[in-house]
Amino acid sequence: MIKQLNPPRRILMGPGPSDVHPAVLQSMATPLLGHLDPAFLEIMNETMDLLRQVYQTENKVTLAMSGTGSAGMETLFVNLVEPGDKVIIGVNGLFGQRMVDVALRCGAEVIQVEGAWGDIIRPEKVEEVLQQHKDIKLVAVVHAETSTGVRQPLQELSEIVHRHHALFVCDMVTSIGGIPTKIDEYGIDAAYSGTQKCLSAPPGLAPVTLSPRALEVSANRKSKVQSWYLDLSMIQNYWGEERFYHHTAPITMIYSLRKALRLIVDEGLENVFHRHALYGRALHAGLEAMGLELLVNEKHRLHQLTAVRIPTNIQDVEVRKRLLQKYGLEIGGGLGELKGKIWRIGLMGYNARQENVTYALAAIEDVLREHGYHFISGAALEAANRYIRENE
Amino acid sequence: MIKQLNPPRRILMGPGPSDVHPAVLQSMATPLLGHLDPAFLEIMNETMDLLRQVYQTENKVTLAMSGTGSAGMETLFVNLVEPGDKVIIGVNGLFGQRMVDVALRCGAEVIQVEGAWGDIIRPEKVEEVLQQHKDIKLVAVVHAETSTGVRQPLQELSEIVHRHHALFVCDMVTSIGGIPTKIDEYGIDAAYSGTQKCLSAPPGLAPVTLSPRALEVSANRKSKVQSWYLDLSMIQNYWGEERFYHHTAPITMIYSLRKALRLIVDEGLENVFHRHALYGRALHAGLEAMGLELLVNEKHRLHQLTAVRIPTNIQDVEVRKRLLQKYGLEIGGGLGELKGKIWRIGLMGYNARQENVTYALAAIEDVLREHGYHFISGAALEAANRYIRENE
Repeated sequence: MIKQLNPPRRILMGPGPSDVHPAVLQSMATPLLGHLDPAFLEIMNETMDLLRQVYQTENKVTLAMSGTGSAGMETLFVNLVEPGDKVIIGVNGLFGQRMVDVALRCGAEVIQVEGAWGDIIRPEKVEEVLQQHKDIKLVAVVHAETSTGVRQPLQELSEIVHRHHALFVCDMVTSIGGIPTKIDEYGIDAAYSGTQKCLSAPPGLAPVTLSPRALEVSANRKSKVQSWYLDLSMIQNYWGEERFYHHTAPITMIYSLRKALRLIVDEGLENVFHRHALYGRALHAGLEAMGLELLVNEKHRLHQLTAVRIPTNIQDVEVRKRLLQKYGLEIGGGLGELKGKIWRIGLMGYNARQENVTYALAAIEDVLREHGYHFISGAALEAANRYIRENE
Repeated sequence: MIKQLNPPRRILMGPGPSDVHPAVLQSMATPLLGHLDPAFLEIMNETMDLLRQVYQTENKVTLAMSGTGSAGMETLFVNLVEPGDKVIIGVNGLFGQRMVDVALRCGAEVIQVEGAWGDIIRPEKVEEVLQQHKDIKLVAVVHAETSTGVRQPLQELSEIVHRHHALFVCDMVTSIGGIPTKIDEYGIDAAYSGTQKCLSAPPGLAPVTLSPRALEVSANRKSKVQSWYLDLSMIQNYWGEERFYHHTAPITMIYSLRKALRLIVDEGLENVFHRHALYGRALHAGLEAMGLELLVNEKHRLHQLTAVRIPTNIQDVEVRKRLLQKYGLEIGGGLGELKGKIWRIGLMGYNARQENVTYALAAIEDVLREHGYHFISGAALEAANRYIRENE
């Protein structure tokens, strides 16, 4: 016998999903429209408008793919890459590795430019490869590496890539709505993201944006896109003026995305970025005051996702289990080569607030103490609050 | 300035999405769990249990892909087919055509067995092709053709396919939860479906089920699955005991699916099928009493989706627009070669009720009369109600 749905209450401060804004949750109880209803097509238009504002672009093709962030990644590769194409992928974490896997399945010849996990991809290393190979079609990097908490600078890299006539593609799953994405200003040709991080909507959609240049590359393909489901030439015709049926859009998810984007636009993008910076840095100050070491140096550290090294003699899984049981607080463990070595603490979207900073620091302090890790009592909260007072 | 989300109220009696059960809508406002939270993994287990019951199978790999029904279609083809494989696809409507497109993009050699739009695929035609080609890997047909309202008989076909050692694959997007799918009894090797038809959940997930035999074929592939996002070898490890992270599951959508399946299991599968048959046939009786002609002969007609020919001199689009404006009632138009020739009326899941039969017949009667189509007043409702009285 299967019981009533009654999940325990959690506070989601891992690498995502993050807590969904209550107004977004409510929007999902809205009855459906048909996917070709004129009223729904209007809602799609509005969603695209909002998405352009939040992505900071005027790209016409700025829409939500019907899958999670990884489907967004696959969308860009299957549409932009043909078998035999040479691509450069920056790999300094799990999501760079994933791009390599996806690109190889598209038949690409992949050249990896590596960075240490916890560091950025060095633009000069990318330029070196571009100089050695004259026929690189695209260069892809992760803007906000969810596995490490690194923020990749984009502007210089974008200039280098374009000087060599390649397309510049960015994973913005964890950056959108948390830090500036500046698609047009930086000249990013294509980007994908997710809804479950700084947008504070549930996972299930992958907002993508493509520049006219990227669309031209895609339009001039010799081979068919290997995925029917992710073929942008058809999906554009559904989201565009033609309104040609492709697949049934996930209507409720689009309601939730529209609501989430509207909350961001109403608050003001700059205010939203400031809020992430303020509380993210307050968390950093608090963790450091506890004597913990942050993985990423300050210059390249994300506000919305913080990787902190697990102190010696502290058991990763036990601490996280205890936080979940005692405090209902979810934080993330490490992935890949950082498994067991770091925790990942998110302050994304709706969760980038005083309440979450205070609660997380207090809970972590208590559980670490239970596990025998000692430091000055109350120092973490004091440091975080001081930072907020001085910078808000 | 983008306004508050406030869509007009519709009654969705097209080919899907259909109206979501109110309890399912409510379930979507439930706060999120993390996608690796033990409580969420339990919810995934329960969802698989329920899905097995509704699919009528004991297949271990019975899970929901993170995309709409078409992603389910693509999942089966990318996992089961390798470049150069020969497959037979039954084409008697749009969704058979779509399977051909998807299979070709996987590099399959596709042999189409055609049926008229509005008729079934004749098993003997499939057998003929199987006798001519000794190396067919799989045969795929659409169980409930959403573009025509045809119900494909599966048992005889399944026996033929297995006699020739091929896999039998079925599109069950519109059949699941509406008519018996009997995966194990019929020996269907793999099937996919959607959530937005007879399950009365929103679109966004694609429940799939694969037999051990199908999984073995997939496990013995020589080439990598061309889609990372839909690669079942990895997705199985997330839904299975390993719980290995692949992509972030669309948590809210899974809440909604679990709730929707539970409503069906609580009502009892046989009762649900009876309800679809009762009200579907009542609608048929009503439409025929209005003098309208149904596209599909009684033997192969679906209960949950009815294709009715548009009377001569009646404008397709105008009538549907008027139904939407005056009655908030959505019915579907024809697709492909049936565009402008039929309407498609769904009575799926929660909508397979007296209320919807009565309302739709009354609304259609009124709007047809407005457009100059004449018949005996009240005959439709009388015929439908008589059928219900005599068969409930």
